[in-house]
Amino acid sequence: MEQRFTIVTLGVADLPAARAFYERLGWTPSSFGGDEIAFFQVGGLVLGLFPREELAKDMALAATPPPQTGGFSLAYNARSKEEVDAVLEQAVAAGATLMKAAEEVFWGGYSGYFHDPDGHAWEVAFNPHWPLAEDGSVQIPK
Amino acid sequence: MEQRFTIVTLGVADLPAARAFYERLGWTPSSFGGDEIAFFQVGGLVLGLFPREELAKDMALAATPPPQTGGFSLAYNARSKEEVDAVLEQAVAAGATLMKAAEEVFWGGYSGYFHDPDGHAWEVAFNPHWPLAEDGSVQIPK
Repeated sequence: MEQRFTIVTLGVADLPAARAFYERLGWTPSSFGGDEIAFFQVGGLVLGLFPREELAKDMALAATPPPQTGGFSLAYNARSKEEVDAVLEQAVAAGATLMKAAEEVFWGGYSGYFHDPDGHAWEVAFNPHWPLAEDGSVQIPK
Repeated sequence: MEQRFTIVTLGVADLPAARAFYERLGWTPSSFGGDEIAFFQVGGLVLGLFPREELAKDMALAATPPPQTGGFSLAYNARSKEEVDAVLEQAVAAGATLMKAAEEVFWGGYSGYFHDPDGHAWEVAFNPHWPLAEDGSVQIPK
């Protein structure tokens, strides 16, 4: 297995509502998608939004698990502390729930959290130790 | 907010055991990490493994949520059907649980699922409609 993955798929309760939330963050869905699934190009990967019950069926689960926050997170590394505050504010205005206002954290960064309307947690952080390339990608030490 | 993210962090029960699972898949952790967190470079992004209770604290949750499978998935797009079968077999040998053996699916691909020792679901799929670049990245239609 190569050290990579292709898609992060988030289970959602209401696909049009979930897609509209990410559009309010300024994201543009791919034309490849529609009433059944939504995809967003994210660097060389894809973020997918898929109805929770359809995702559970695809996985051959017997039942759709309840929504949950906290089992995993996505992190958006911002380019400055000011951008962290601005993104958290934008997310809340778009319908997210603030979980933790941004604060200085022990590893030397500045970090807060929101969760999207389906409960999926996003960290928004400025990490001075991980410089971002212009395209937003990051390379950490080998 | 730019259309990207930086890290996918999976909450794990036992960090050394979780890291060892991904090492058995052939992955190499970054030297940036250690007893408290593990990071793997994944294209221009990072996969993190972080103890569940520490992740919950970082999010300011009152309690650590129970492990769950099915709220989201990571997908590994393989380069052939044969690679799908080989990766599923490798994952199970490494300690994963097979959720669904690979089969032909309605969208024209070939797909199966495993979950890692912490319950995080991985789809392993061959998608003839999404050609992979040599580095494993994918670009979908705008």
